[in-house]
Order: sequence, then structure tokens, then C-alpha cells
Amino acid sequence: MSQLKGACIIGQSGGPSAVINASAYGAIKTALENEDITQVLGALHGIKGVLNDDLIDMGKEDPAELAHMKYTPSSALGSCRYKLADPDVDDTDYKRILEIFKKYNVRYFFYNGGNDSMDTCNKISKFMLKNGYECRVMGIPKTIDNDLYGTDHCPGFASAAKYIATSVMEVYRDSTVYDNGQITVVECMGRHAGWLTAAAALANYAGDGADMIYLPERDFDLDAFTEKVKAVYAQKKKCLAVVSEGIHDKDGKFISEYGNANAAKDAFGHTQLGGLASFLANHLKAATGAKVRGIELSLLQRCASHAASQTDIDESFAAGKAAVDNAVAGITDKMVGFERSCDKDGKYVCNIKLFDLTDVANTEKKVPLEWITPDGDGLTKDFIDYALPLIQGETQQTKENGLPRFVHLAKVKAEPIA
Amino acid sequence: MSQLKGACIIGQSGGPSAVINASAYGAIKTALENEDITQVLGALHGIKGVLNDDLIDMGKEDPAELAHMKYTPSSALGSCRYKLADPDVDDTDYKRILEIFKKYNVRYFFYNGGNDSMDTCNKISKFMLKNGYECRVMGIPKTIDNDLYGTDHCPGFASAAKYIATSVMEVYRDSTVYDNGQITVVECMGRHAGWLTAAAALANYAGDGADMIYLPERDFDLDAFTEKVKAVYAQKKKCLAVVSEGIHDKDGKFISEYGNANAAKDAFGHTQLGGLASFLANHLKAATGAKVRGIELSLLQRCASHAASQTDIDESFAAGKAAVDNAVAGITDKMVGFERSCDKDGKYVCNIKLFDLTDVANTEKKVPLEWITPDGDGLTKDFIDYALPLIQGETQQTKENGLPRFVHLAKVKAEPIA
Repeated sequence: MSQLKGACIIGQSGGPSAVINASAYGAIKTALENEDITQVLGALHGIKGVLNDDLIDMGKEDPAELAHMKYTPSSALGSCRYKLADPDVDDTDYKRILEIFKKYNVRYFFYNGGNDSMDTCNKISKFMLKNGYECRVMGIPKTIDNDLYGTDHCPGFASAAKYIATSVMEVYRDSTVYDNGQITVVECMGRHAGWLTAAAALANYAGDGADMIYLPERDFDLDAFTEKVKAVYAQKKKCLAVVSEGIHDKDGKFISEYGNANAAKDAFGHTQLGGLASFLANHLKAATGAKVRGIELSLLQRCASHAASQTDIDESFAAGKAAVDNAVAGITDKMVGFERSCDKDGKYVCNIKLFDLTDVANTEKKVPLEWITPDGDGLTKDFIDYALPLIQGETQQTKENGLPRFVHLAKVKAEPIA
Repeated sequence: MSQLKGACIIGQSGGPSAVINASAYGAIKTALENEDITQVLGALHGIKGVLNDDLIDMGKEDPAELAHMKYTPSSALGSCRYKLADPDVDDTDYKRILEIFKKYNVRYFFYNGGNDSMDTCNKISKFMLKNGYECRVMGIPKTIDNDLYGTDHCPGFASAAKYIATSVMEVYRDSTVYDNGQITVVECMGRHAGWLTAAAALANYAGDGADMIYLPERDFDLDAFTEKVKAVYAQKKKCLAVVSEGIHDKDGKFISEYGNANAAKDAFGHTQLGGLASFLANHLKAATGAKVRGIELSLLQRCASHAASQTDIDESFAAGKAAVDNAVAGITDKMVGFERSCDKDGKYVCNIKLFDLTDVANTEKKVPLEWITPDGDGLTKDFIDYALPLIQGETQQTKENGLPRFVHLAKVKAEPIA
């Protein structure tokens, strides 16, 4: 394995999370301390920052300030949802990326994101190889959706899960306080994978949970749902249902579209969902006459750093660090992931494991069907056993004046080193 | 001042908060330790629990379990929104309350709620006096709305404010992460008083806040708002506005009603608002063509015990304790409130102060107009100085398995003591 000296670029992409900056900080801090890495560059707004030569010099940041990155939500370097073309069809972007890599002598590229970001990593790596430019490329996973192939779980999931479980516990207490009854529908993110919505089952485990939980892994029948709500409400004068934004009927039609025939699509052709909680609340109000409240957890569930899991934060940092350590050691074309094991006392242990980018890109990992209860509206103990270790530990986020202390980067424009 | 021996009833009413149970626990614990109070009764679902003889014996609860009440959101005894009739028109309920008081020898009545609850306290006290039944009545305030007369602030406000400020900081980071722009509208509770929405200004103070904040204390002009959003978005490619559910135009019409002509009313004749964030998001999307997201903080803002202010928790407990201590000392017909002072170092100090129930009932305290910036879309430093001391301190809530440990009451039905 040859030693490779040069600059590195770190970029962030896709929807942010409460801990994606912990990963970026893990990579940045490790890179700044490594002698083979001559300059640590931050790409503003992901790959677009590379294309636009919008790079900042992370070495010019105050180290004490930079340390707050570990506990700051969202992507401190900015994000993008830019999909690179197929290089066989249009290689304009790739040529530009190579130009920038040459300009700064970039020999390491670390990209911090979800499925689409791993695809971006993979394409860039293949192009560099084809063009004889030596560059090691590593993907650092991030996605609250927890749907990346191979890895036991994804950085960001646990913090969102902890927030969702905590919020469902609190909403359960609040929404059942009156004797004249209430039906409540809570909507969680998750287009195709129900991991986040499943996190509501942790609230049940803690004793204050939902009556029903619906994931997109199973078809959703609005009539059956309505009857179930009616039955629960008739018996208990209250009903709390948690639904994934991506629940759909047996024909694959999103339930959210029942109330909105013209849902917009994003840059990747994904249908832009929303308003499901509101649709179901109105539907149930008409069907039952009860007081109904729809609550959409919206962005709150993915940026709630104040309620993040310290386990998640530490693992996210470790993923970023491992990407740099492994790349410097000669590894390329891998995504850093996690493998679960346990110590001699049976306690959860998380080990770093590398996955081929080719395998990871654009593959979605869903909640195993056998973890969903037979009637399709709950989770088995398997899910609890899986998720509970991940949400342990309260964030060590610094507070100032009773509020979170987030990082404020100086963002000094990078100059190539002579 | 005569000694008065007998049972006490503690009830909770109105919309719950993250700390109303801290007040109830302050009263219950103090009452259980007091020798003049022979039995401590909890009324299930507020005054309806008294009317229905649905009382539990708080002395039968496990003290260690009961202690979790201090950190459990919502009303552990259950709440109601039941409005007592004017006793001069219909005294049926009052006669029934007197009957129950006599049955259990109730000599102390503590009621934990907002404006309407103080009105209930006041009416019951006057009826007992008129009928020659000696009973001391104390109101223990609670309202995230912070709109009770006299008191410097209300238990519950600070925890909701801390959650709102924190969430706005996080949403600001998340919603401004893409370079292709986003407009975000966050909706906070508050029909007539803008205290909660004003809490978003604390996020600005911390460096990650809203571009505009609109309270119901000022008329809202949808066209002017739209132009302002357009101007901010044109300049920054992002815009975050925080609005109160109760914003209304110069004719007093709620903006939320612009999208919903047939808003429902609750038992008190209050218009049931909702959907404002969604309405404004759709409106701005059409007006700007930008990506727009509406976020309603909904119940989350009033039950987020995991993010409660320890200052608020401690003050809420102190309010409950003061109600019992003062009643036993001979005081009646008062609401416990707070008066602000400072120590010799200029540090915030909160003192207990009693207010006449007659003055408090049904009077609303709004945000002073001079604390709103001249253009009506921000708060002055006066508000920050007012609110900042209240949100200090992180909750000492016990966690179990990474999730909050809430109280689970045994709820043993009370029997009159011979």
C-alpha cells in the first residue's frame, strides 16, 4: 500500500440530521491531525461546492469553535440535492471535478450523505480511476431513514428515533388528558422504509405509546384503519396512531395523495409528500365526530440535536474518523458502516465495518416484515431489541444561556498550497 | 387566624403543560406532610372529578413513584374544560360540590390551571362563603400562554419558550441548508397573547433565529407580510417566519380563517384554530414559487418535558407548595403568583406573591406593545431580558433506557375518613 500525500475534500449532501456534523467533524479533526493530508477542504453545499470551486479551508477554523460542530444539527457546510449525470452520457461535471481535484491536489474525497451520496461517491471514484488520477474515495453514511444497505444502522437514525419516541410519549400524555376524548395522528418521515415510524414502538415499550403504528412496508387500508380507530376510541375514549409519510394502499398509491392528487416531485423524481396527518385527521373527524388532532413531526424529527442520542453522536464521529483513517491506510471505494456485536456481559458493541460503494449505492434497506406484528399495526420485540441500545445516552451538547451552543464557522475561502 | 383541620382536594384543569404536574406535586407533597391536612384527595379530570365523586387518595401512592410527577408532562390527574354556570342562574353544580366537600370534610381546595380555572376557584369560594361552609381556596397558576394577570410570569411558559427557542434554532439550521433556497413558516400557540411566539426571539438572541416574528398583539397584513418574505428571500435565498396561531387582520379576522371559513369553537366559545402554517405555506408557495414548508409546533410545544426549564420546574413546584403553606396559615381566595427581583449581584430572583382571585379571573395579560419592534415583526431587548432568566437550567428528569421516566399513579379510590 502506497503512501498518498495531498489535500482532502469533505462534503455533505442530502437531507441533514442531528448528527451529520458529528461525522463531518470526526473526519475533519482526524484529517487535520494527519500528516499525509496536506490541506483539509470543506465543500460548501456538497458536490456543488466542488463544481463551483466553493471550498473553505478547515485548517483556518478556530479548533475550539470547530469542536461545537459535533453537537450542531443540520449540515454545517451546507447541503445539496444535486444528482450527477451518468458519466457515459454526460461527463461535464466529472471533468470539472477532476480539474478542481488537480487544482488543489485533492487525493482524498469524503462524502457524507445517504443513498444518493454513495452513488455520487461511486461515480466520482470510477471516473478518477478511468482517468488515471489517484484519489481515494470514502462514503460516510448519514440518514435518519436508516435505509442504507449493509450497515447495521445509519448515523442519524438513533437521534431521530429517540426524539420520536420521546415526543410520542409526551403527546400520548397530553392528548389523553381530557375525559371527553381525543383521537391523535402523528406523522413521521419515511418514504419507503418505516424505521423512523417504528421508533414510536419504543414509547410503547416505555409505557406511554401509540395504539397503532403503520409502516410503508405493509399496504395500508384506510377503511380497516378507520374501523380500528373507531373500535379503540369506543373502548378507551382515546386513540393515538403513528403513521409513516409513505404509507400506501395495495395499489401503491400514497395515502397522502388521497387528499392531494397533484403531489410535486423533487429533483430525484421522488414524490414530495406531506399533509398526511392533516388528511387522516380530517378523515377521522368526519368518520367519528370525535375531536381529532393531526401532528406532523416535520423537520423537527431530523434536527432535534437537543434530544440526540450520545451513542449516535459518538458513533457518527467514529464513522467520520474511520473514513479518514482507512483512506490514509490505502482503502478506497468503501462506505463506512456499523456491525453490531456484544461484549462478554452481553452489552451492545458497535464496530466499524467497510462496505463496497457499488453495493451500497441506491439500495434501500427496509424494516424486516417479520418485525411487524401480524395485524400490521405494531412492532415485535425484535425491533425494540434492535433500536433500544442505539438511543442510549443524553447529548453532551454545550448550552449557553439555556440554549444550545451551535458552531459558527469562519468559512475562509481555500487557496491551493504551492 | 384559626387552625382548620380537614381534607384537601387538588385538581388540574385546562390545557396541560410540561410542568403543571410539578405544581400539583408541590401541593400534594406539602399537603401530605402537613398535620392539619387529614387526607389529600386528587380530583380526576378537574372539577368534574369532584362533581362525579371521582377522587383518589394521594396518600396511598408510593412516595418514590409520586416523585416522578415533578418531571411528567400533562396533567397526571386528568384535565377538563368544564365551565361552571353562574351560580345566580344555576347553582346545581355548586350544591353538588358542597355535598362532596362535606362528605370528605374538605376544607382546602387547590385548583391548578389557567384563567378559566381561576374563575372556577373564585366562584366555588364565593358559594362556600355564602353557604357558611369554611373552606380555603387557592389557585395554582399554569399556562404556557403566560397570560395571567398580576404574576410576573406563569408556570409552564418558560418550558414551552425554551422548547420553542431551541426548536426554532434547530429548524433555522435545517431549513437553510440547501443552496436552492427555502421559505419556512413556524406556527406557535397563542390565541390572544403572543408570549410563546415571542420566545422565538430567544433563538435570534442565540444567533440562529427567525427573520420575522408576528404576535397577535398587532394587526397582521397578509400582503405586507408576503412582500416582506419576498424581499428577504430575494436577498438571502431563505426566509424563516414565526407566527402566532392568533394573528389576525385589522378587522379582527384570524388569518387562519382565510383558509377555513368554518372554524369550530370549543366549550368556552373560543374559535378552534389550526392550519395557519399550512395556509401561509401554500399562500407563499403560490406567491413566490419557492420551496415552502409550514411547521406547526402543535401539542409538542406544551408537553416537551424532556426540554423543560429546570427554573420553571422548580418555580412550579414552589407555587404548589406555597398554595398549601399559605392556605394552612389561614389565607384563602388567592392565586399564587410570582414577583421578580434580583439579588445583590443583579441575578434574577423569583419570589412568591399572592393575587386576589377576583382580579385574576378572566383577565388576559398580553405582550407589552413597546416590546414589539416598530415594524411589528420582531421583539426588543426588553423581551429577551424578561424571558432569558426563565429558561435557564436543564431538566433533571430521570431517564430509563434512554427515555423519560414518567409517573404511573396507582389511583386508589378515596374513602371518607371516619
